[in-house]
Amino acid sequence: MSGLFTLGLVEMADAVADGSVTALALTEVALKRLETLGPRYNAIMALDGGTALEAARGVDRARAAGQPLGPLAGVPLAHKDLFYRAGRVCTGGSIIRKDFVPDVTATALERFDRAGALDLGTLHLAEFALSPTGFNAHYGHGLSPWNTAYGAGGSSSGSGASVAARLVPAALGSDTGGSIRHPSAMSGVVGLKPTHGLVPAFGAMPMAPSLDTLGPLTRTVRDAARIMSVIAGPDPRDAASLPAPRLDFEGGLTGDLKGRTIAVPGGYYREATTPEIQALMDAAVAVLKEAGARIVETGTPDMALVNALMQVMMTVEAATLHRRWLSERPQDYGAQVRARILPGFGLPATRYAEALMLRAGITREWLAAAMGDADMALIPTLGIPVPTIAETTQGTPEEIGAALGRVTACTRGINYLGLPSLSVPCGFTANAMPAAFQLVGRPYAEPALLQAGDAYQRRTDFHARLPPDCGPVD
Amino acid sequence: MSGLFTLGLVEMADAVADGSVTALALTEVALKRLETLGPRYNAIMALDGGTALEAARGVDRARAAGQPLGPLAGVPLAHKDLFYRAGRVCTGGSIIRKDFVPDVTATALERFDRAGALDLGTLHLAEFALSPTGFNAHYGHGLSPWNTAYGAGGSSSGSGASVAARLVPAALGSDTGGSIRHPSAMSGVVGLKPTHGLVPAFGAMPMAPSLDTLGPLTRTVRDAARIMSVIAGPDPRDAASLPAPRLDFEGGLTGDLKGRTIAVPGGYYREATTPEIQALMDAAVAVLKEAGARIVETGTPDMALVNALMQVMMTVEAATLHRRWLSERPQDYGAQVRARILPGFGLPATRYAEALMLRAGITREWLAAAMGDADMALIPTLGIPVPTIAETTQGTPEEIGAALGRVTACTRGINYLGLPSLSVPCGFTANAMPAAFQLVGRPYAEPALLQAGDAYQRRTDFHARLPPDCGPVD
Repeated sequence: MSGLFTLGLVEMADAVADGSVTALALTEVALKRLETLGPRYNAIMALDGGTALEAARGVDRARAAGQPLGPLAGVPLAHKDLFYRAGRVCTGGSIIRKDFVPDVTATALERFDRAGALDLGTLHLAEFALSPTGFNAHYGHGLSPWNTAYGAGGSSSGSGASVAARLVPAALGSDTGGSIRHPSAMSGVVGLKPTHGLVPAFGAMPMAPSLDTLGPLTRTVRDAARIMSVIAGPDPRDAASLPAPRLDFEGGLTGDLKGRTIAVPGGYYREATTPEIQALMDAAVAVLKEAGARIVETGTPDMALVNALMQVMMTVEAATLHRRWLSERPQDYGAQVRARILPGFGLPATRYAEALMLRAGITREWLAAAMGDADMALIPTLGIPVPTIAETTQGTPEEIGAALGRVTACTRGINYLGLPSLSVPCGFTANAMPAAFQLVGRPYAEPALLQAGDAYQRRTDFHARLPPDCGPVD
Repeated sequence: MSGLFTLGLVEMADAVADGSVTALALTEVALKRLETLGPRYNAIMALDGGTALEAARGVDRARAAGQPLGPLAGVPLAHKDLFYRAGRVCTGGSIIRKDFVPDVTATALERFDRAGALDLGTLHLAEFALSPTGFNAHYGHGLSPWNTAYGAGGSSSGSGASVAARLVPAALGSDTGGSIRHPSAMSGVVGLKPTHGLVPAFGAMPMAPSLDTLGPLTRTVRDAARIMSVIAGPDPRDAASLPAPRLDFEGGLTGDLKGRTIAVPGGYYREATTPEIQALMDAAVAVLKEAGARIVETGTPDMALVNALMQVMMTVEAATLHRRWLSERPQDYGAQVRARILPGFGLPATRYAEALMLRAGITREWLAAAMGDADMALIPTLGIPVPTIAETTQGTPEEIGAALGRVTACTRGINYLGLPSLSVPCGFTANAMPAAFQLVGRPYAEPALLQAGDAYQRRTDFHARLPPDCGPVD
């Protein structure tokens, strides 16, 4: 059967469930593509085909025996290499952890296992998840399937590239300052950064726990909704996992946005956006309006303050977690990563405490100013066209820092605010690279964001475009 | 009608509801006692009899008109002077805030208002809530009704003294390192420090938000349970207020502890306890056993670490909140209070972040070691007999520090762990001062703690003893 690789996640699950395709066939295709196309984008850390094929046969046997199947039964997946699976190496993108074998399994992976999904291996990421483009001094740069002169977006670079190139229909990422949304924009896939605390962080390598979130990269919003049904919800092993309301992620995907209001904040976000990207934003807003949404213009509070507080929180928490390694094995860090963490050691405790204390009030202010009474706000994921790898790795440290700052301008503040954000591809710029918008909502507004993103994709086909050279493997 | 002042909170509410007493009569008695006995213990900050009498008349009119009454209708209360009421001065025990008029009302006070309780005024506390004995360099020391050579216990000194002397049947306090439980032990009343986040902190002057909790001081556990029914539960205005399970605080007060297990941790807590206090603990355990509880002996993890992390958290958060005042008006702080806050400025951010990150794991360890499978752990509130005021205010700073450290030895660590603790008076030491035990539970175990404390009070009469010179005013 040809073309299996073009199926989405829900389509695969449905096909396995109705018997029109076997889990084994899906897994064989995915493995072959991971093995042959994966290295082209430096998307792979380590594959484990044997275990996955055995598990696929188990799903097929279970179906043949009439046993009930989980909501992702037989779907081949692979995830960013920072989710622990007991007994399997998890590098976190570092060489310090190149032989680290955790003795616990991440809650998210356990929930995938229970849902019947198959785990084919681990995907490339930035060193310790610290690069918005997918730069990794030890394992090489993650590359975009659209053009390998460009980064896949980071830090969940392998997840973005693998989904874009249709190696797997979905992959988990993590997002501390944009690490799910950057690959969404730069590789041209959907990425959902959930409300902080909604998807349990247990068993995922932490970077800055107050900011860290875990979520899916997929081609369609519909598929992201299915994954959220599987992985969201409280976890007694994760103190930060909140007893959130039980959310219905899939029930509201009607394609109709009547009664919904979408805010378009001016000011900071507008200023961070080039005319070319702005035109794509305007076009996306027009589509959402056509789907029934009311559009309102709003403002943006002081993002210099938000970004500075996010920076304090990230560097202090990363410094705290890396203190021992940085003192014992500084040479095992890439210079860029070391330089991003070290400032955290120089800050007084009161600066960090202030960043924590101001968080709730500033979040309320942001929501009031940027959203008002709207259900969500639309801003660019990346306000600029995707930069080349050369543009973000060559030059003085100041020039590199400025280039990376432009990449994270619209993403990193959202982590300080703890809000959910859905990034959706919405066209291409003159360099033939993808662009994306973010829909940002109040805590636990994921169902509304997914509803709007799905309505958008029903009316557009950017998610159906295949990157060059990603067709059938042979 | 004489003897009204001896009624407890629930008894007063019942009497108003069945018409056997008027809210006005209760309020007049309470006001008279606050005015005449209150100053003797330095328990009062400011009274507002006029407003309270007017409100009492309103309750009586409502009852006469057959309108439904709240669960605390007509009950005269007064609270620690750190709960904001819009338009009323709230000093927080400081002279910096001696004219501060908040424009919001604390959630807890709003809930009391809705329940029909009356607010007669504000009660003494330590400066900025920072003294375990009730010391206040500006407003004088809070005094124990049992003997004014001793402190009332702090920082909720006026709340402890007013309840012990039967000026009001209950008062709110706050507890960051023991500030509800110290007056419980030193003034001989019940004090409940709730699970962190269960009673909303909105509108209460913060000291160290990660540790701050608000709760009742009462004579009976039964009365504390009623107050928790009124003030506990989520508050959208308080980011730290958790969407907790809805708890039934009053339904489990059966007097029967069959099926409950109470752990008695050895090690640290035993070593912090004098033989005289230990004998009272043993006697309390015997009563709880008689009520049906199974008693098990457990250990205690490293409390030096817990206490050190609590100290980091408290000083850093207090320093963050006090930075501006401390730099602009250092002379307006008492030397002791300034000395307790200043170390927070000298700590690096990573020390504070570490204290936050270790919290969940250390709490799990504490619960496993000190409680095991038990429902709660019994430890002393104060491991030593109540010290005199002279013993905690005279000597070198080191001697004073050591004396205060003994007062907080069994209380301050519990705030780092975020656990609920119910302090219950359980006898008297040779100096004729009260002693108390704490029942510490898992998060949200307040109903079980109240059940055990109530069962204890049904079998003992320490809560019924009146301090000397606290009889009828005339």
